[in-house]
Amino acid sequence: MSPNNFISSPVDLRNLSFSSLQVVCEDLRSFIIDHVAVNGGHFSSSLGVVELTVALHYVFNTPIDKLIWDVGHQAYPHKLLTGRRKSFYSNRLLGGISGFPCRDESEFDAFGTGHSSTSISAILGMAIAAKYRGELNRQHIAVIGDGAMTAGQAFEAMNNAGYEQPNMLIILNDNNMSIDSNTGALQNYLTDLTTAKYYNTLKLHLKNLLSSENSSTKWASDTLRKFDKIIKGGFMQYSNLFEALNIRYFGPVDGHDLKKMISLFEKLKHIPGPKLLHCVTIKGKGFAPALADPKIWHAPGTFNKSTGAKLSTVNRSPTFQEVFGNTLLALAKTNDRIIAVSPAMLSGSSLSKMKSEMPERVFDVGIAEQHSVTFCAGLATDGLLPFCAIYSTFLQRAYDQLIHDVALQKLPVVFCIDRAGVVGTDGPTHHGAFDISFLRCIPNITGASPMDLDDFKNLLFTAQCDTLNGPFAIRYPKSTGAGELKSKFCKIPLGKGRKIKSGKRIAILSLGPIGQFAVEACQELLDDHIDVAHYDLRFFKPIDETLLHDVFSQFSVVITIEDGSLIGGIGSAVMEFMVDNGYHSILKRLGLPDTFATQGTQDQLHALYGYDKKAIISLIRSLHHELNKDNTSKKNN
Amino acid sequence: MSPNNFISSPVDLRNLSFSSLQVVCEDLRSFIIDHVAVNGGHFSSSLGVVELTVALHYVFNTPIDKLIWDVGHQAYPHKLLTGRRKSFYSNRLLGGISGFPCRDESEFDAFGTGHSSTSISAILGMAIAAKYRGELNRQHIAVIGDGAMTAGQAFEAMNNAGYEQPNMLIILNDNNMSIDSNTGALQNYLTDLTTAKYYNTLKLHLKNLLSSENSSTKWASDTLRKFDKIIKGGFMQYSNLFEALNIRYFGPVDGHDLKKMISLFEKLKHIPGPKLLHCVTIKGKGFAPALADPKIWHAPGTFNKSTGAKLSTVNRSPTFQEVFGNTLLALAKTNDRIIAVSPAMLSGSSLSKMKSEMPERVFDVGIAEQHSVTFCAGLATDGLLPFCAIYSTFLQRAYDQLIHDVALQKLPVVFCIDRAGVVGTDGPTHHGAFDISFLRCIPNITGASPMDLDDFKNLLFTAQCDTLNGPFAIRYPKSTGAGELKSKFCKIPLGKGRKIKSGKRIAILSLGPIGQFAVEACQELLDDHIDVAHYDLRFFKPIDETLLHDVFSQFSVVITIEDGSLIGGIGSAVMEFMVDNGYHSILKRLGLPDTFATQGTQDQLHALYGYDKKAIISLIRSLHHELNKDNTSKKNN
Repeated sequence: MSPNNFISSPVDLRNLSFSSLQVVCEDLRSFIIDHVAVNGGHFSSSLGVVELTVALHYVFNTPIDKLIWDVGHQAYPHKLLTGRRKSFYSNRLLGGISGFPCRDESEFDAFGTGHSSTSISAILGMAIAAKYRGELNRQHIAVIGDGAMTAGQAFEAMNNAGYEQPNMLIILNDNNMSIDSNTGALQNYLTDLTTAKYYNTLKLHLKNLLSSENSSTKWASDTLRKFDKIIKGGFMQYSNLFEALNIRYFGPVDGHDLKKMISLFEKLKHIPGPKLLHCVTIKGKGFAPALADPKIWHAPGTFNKSTGAKLSTVNRSPTFQEVFGNTLLALAKTNDRIIAVSPAMLSGSSLSKMKSEMPERVFDVGIAEQHSVTFCAGLATDGLLPFCAIYSTFLQRAYDQLIHDVALQKLPVVFCIDRAGVVGTDGPTHHGAFDISFLRCIPNITGASPMDLDDFKNLLFTAQCDTLNGPFAIRYPKSTGAGELKSKFCKIPLGKGRKIKSGKRIAILSLGPIGQFAVEACQELLDDHIDVAHYDLRFFKPIDETLLHDVFSQFSVVITIEDGSLIGGIGSAVMEFMVDNGYHSILKRLGLPDTFATQGTQDQLHALYGYDKKAIISLIRSLHHELNKDNTSKKNN
Repeated sequence: MSPNNFISSPVDLRNLSFSSLQVVCEDLRSFIIDHVAVNGGHFSSSLGVVELTVALHYVFNTPIDKLIWDVGHQAYPHKLLTGRRKSFYSNRLLGGISGFPCRDESEFDAFGTGHSSTSISAILGMAIAAKYRGELNRQHIAVIGDGAMTAGQAFEAMNNAGYEQPNMLIILNDNNMSIDSNTGALQNYLTDLTTAKYYNTLKLHLKNLLSSENSSTKWASDTLRKFDKIIKGGFMQYSNLFEALNIRYFGPVDGHDLKKMISLFEKLKHIPGPKLLHCVTIKGKGFAPALADPKIWHAPGTFNKSTGAKLSTVNRSPTFQEVFGNTLLALAKTNDRIIAVSPAMLSGSSLSKMKSEMPERVFDVGIAEQHSVTFCAGLATDGLLPFCAIYSTFLQRAYDQLIHDVALQKLPVVFCIDRAGVVGTDGPTHHGAFDISFLRCIPNITGASPMDLDDFKNLLFTAQCDTLNGPFAIRYPKSTGAGELKSKFCKIPLGKGRKIKSGKRIAILSLGPIGQFAVEACQELLDDHIDVAHYDLRFFKPIDETLLHDVFSQFSVVITIEDGSLIGGIGSAVMEFMVDNGYHSILKRLGLPDTFATQGTQDQLHALYGYDKKAIISLIRSLHHELNKDNTSKKNN
């Protein structure tokens, strides 16, 4: 029996001997490898923090002491140690446990995470609450990666923590990676800290000075030793970025040295005020293939755990991501105004190839959404055309910059809004549910979503054809796309939708790739002799008024479908048009209801929230039935 | 004739002798004092950067060299030197020049600002664009205050700049203030830098060590001198927060020493890579009353320039801000769960009084909107009830935190959304136009806006009565409010509106204080024998469905009024209800159209965008006329 089988809570862990703790670590690692190999999920980050997690739960009195995992994709060992080993089979599945810490799931998950760099703010809130209440013994710990540390919010929180001085411990989990390799000045600084570069330089200088001819060797070495003490007590303190913010810096320490970490945590418990412990860990530790290529092994899908070979997926159409990466590269070759910008998602956005071919035209700015958008605005003032590749859920982080720096100044920035609509198993923290609603109200924006891959390619082409008079947003989901990619580029008229199919009485207006559900639904309904029209709106702003006048003057029933929130979404845009123009059709809107969508496959979620093919067919059948009833009763009257 | 009369562009400035430059400075200062005394506007910040501005335009080749003023409320001297002296009378007025830098206004305004901490991102974009194009001689300068430096975006941008290493100069304008006194660890750090605390400490230690009995005095002083060099070349570098981010640090320098600054800028021009110059300036320099109380003199309104006495405003009703400050303080006295949080807007939000009475329960977290909201989430997990006072336009900065950290986790945080609707003369960067639209799509939120002061007081009371099951947002404008404040608190049922007046055929549904326009309009229309009903929706989420069923079953014409964007706003919410429930009334929506609203007084803007009393009356007269025509024609048929 593996030792973890009886660890249903950290209390069990605390009763183990030190040697058993190391067995626990081995067991956690193999459990995670076994599980992810078969079920997929986040991987390398969790392998990197096994010892750290065990040491934390061993020393600290969780859940009374508060422990927050920044981002949270490294929290698998934490989940396994806090009562979720048995339910771990359901990790990230519909109805199962979350792939991220989640307050609803366990009292050990002090704060739900998913988006990065929130942990210091949240733990500061808890530490201040404890101070306010006079609970001076409670401990507060946030574990944050070096990648997450580059996000401004972490800096804002440290600036505030250094001022307020409550008891809290920030553990900087430095593995030199976010999902991609980290970029940014901070990363080099952390490396310098790890190698004690400054300290060693200064010491060498002093040594050279002191060993001059007119001083005794003994005196020189004595003085050097004394000065060393001063340097360590003062210089290292003053020379440190974290100490500059009045947060005591400790480390660097090997984050896989369980014994060292336990003894350090015991000491840190008793040091008041905000502290930062710099832990150096290896992402993917314990699984050789992951060490060789941590980027790919961040969330590898399923794989053979002996060989590390990825289990082949079935032949499939290209993804929107692949088309994006290839198309932008092709366009950049003919249009030298094009620059690509990504906030730490180069590979997720398929920009790695362009980065290697045109390194001077692709910028990974780190986890820094706010900066990424204003940086694009700066590029755009100078006649360049930045394509800002950003996930829908992370664009929420740069909303003000999009409004204040880009849209207000009518700057040409192309927002390539990836992971729009439901994203699947990452769940509620990551769905791109709100972008249509929060973009539609912003003046000067053009917004589109392609129904198929070729349209996507052409929208990207269109975005760089002329001088844009403001931002151009193109939203697309994390998925394969329909349709064939033609070799030629076609310019798409801005704000123009298209008719996919004619029909009678009932029309579907779809936005984006889920228009394919409408295509299939229309096809199936023909078997029932229900002939439904279908239009691809293509743009959510400006909306195609000519097309809508056509639709509302022809059809008594109009159905809108969108992969996003119904409130304020494309259905509402159509409705605003209809009512403002005095049309009185029956309008039914399909899309995400007013709830945070849960986790599950995209197919499951489309079905669950009632906007897949089946839902469309069923709605149309019932509407058709109503219409016929009305007609019959009219005829009978 | 003052020397500035012939300075229509910096080219003129560059032809002046040094002694004339000092006259220019004096002239700029008195021009600003004269102008603001009579017309109001931002004040102390501009007085603090007079020498800095003159030195910058004297040395750098603007507008070819790019110069960005962070926040931009300190840009008056810049505007006066760049061709806007004659039009300055219209500063902040409807149709006049903007109170902030604005790309549409002048080629010297390289980037429009208003919200803080965007300048480093934008100048980095421009510097990278120059590098990409091979324009290696162009200079790029961003001037940013110490307050703005606490915002995470500035850190994100510096992290990126230190990595990319383009030629750019950040001028840190350190005056120890944002609008209120700065808080945060960074502020203390900057003070330590200014006083060279670390350097002096280390030097003292070494001196003591070296002056031991067995070393000659001369040798000791020689060695100390040599080591001093090393320290200055290395220690100061390594010990610096900015140097840690690979940005060369220069200073501190007296920002009022024109000569010194000019010579420094000349040198810095030739140093490649990103650099930061730490300038120490005095906010309000040159106007004694402003030095004594810089908080009040940030934007003082009109005043007597000889005495500094504020020109008295007429007797007026209390503002929403005053009611907020007083009510929260009163509630906090009886409810010890209440904590107030503000991102650097304590006095703007009227929290100064509570801060002085209950310092341990009011947190000014600095210009750090993202952090402020997650910090509130952290407090809320621990059973406290944070009231986050934040301007509508700045809430855009914390949109993701509101969604991901607060709403998703259903945490009780009360968002007191100040400056909602049009704010007046601050103009397009500062209007609170979008909050209804961007909040309405977020699940789990309760959102309200009071029509009068007493309702506001009661909404604040209601927010802290029970355990909230998610965030509670209350939006209110920067203005006085209507109605009498009653002494008793009343609990308001969540999601419930109220009938203000009965009527026939036509009903107005208003949200927020502009409901007063409806009251007045209804009154005036009675003179024309038009009897219009009026309902105060009070909540924009959840919307009062009972009330709406009532309204739509009774009235054939419904008009909504809101002080916010029409797209996705409260009118759309009412429309979504109407269409989803199969009602077919005529629905007319009044509010902000799809454009960035301009600057002007609130009254001017309400009129300009067609939702003041006059616009309501005129719409209703024409609708009434239509209805009568219909009735007449029906009767005639």
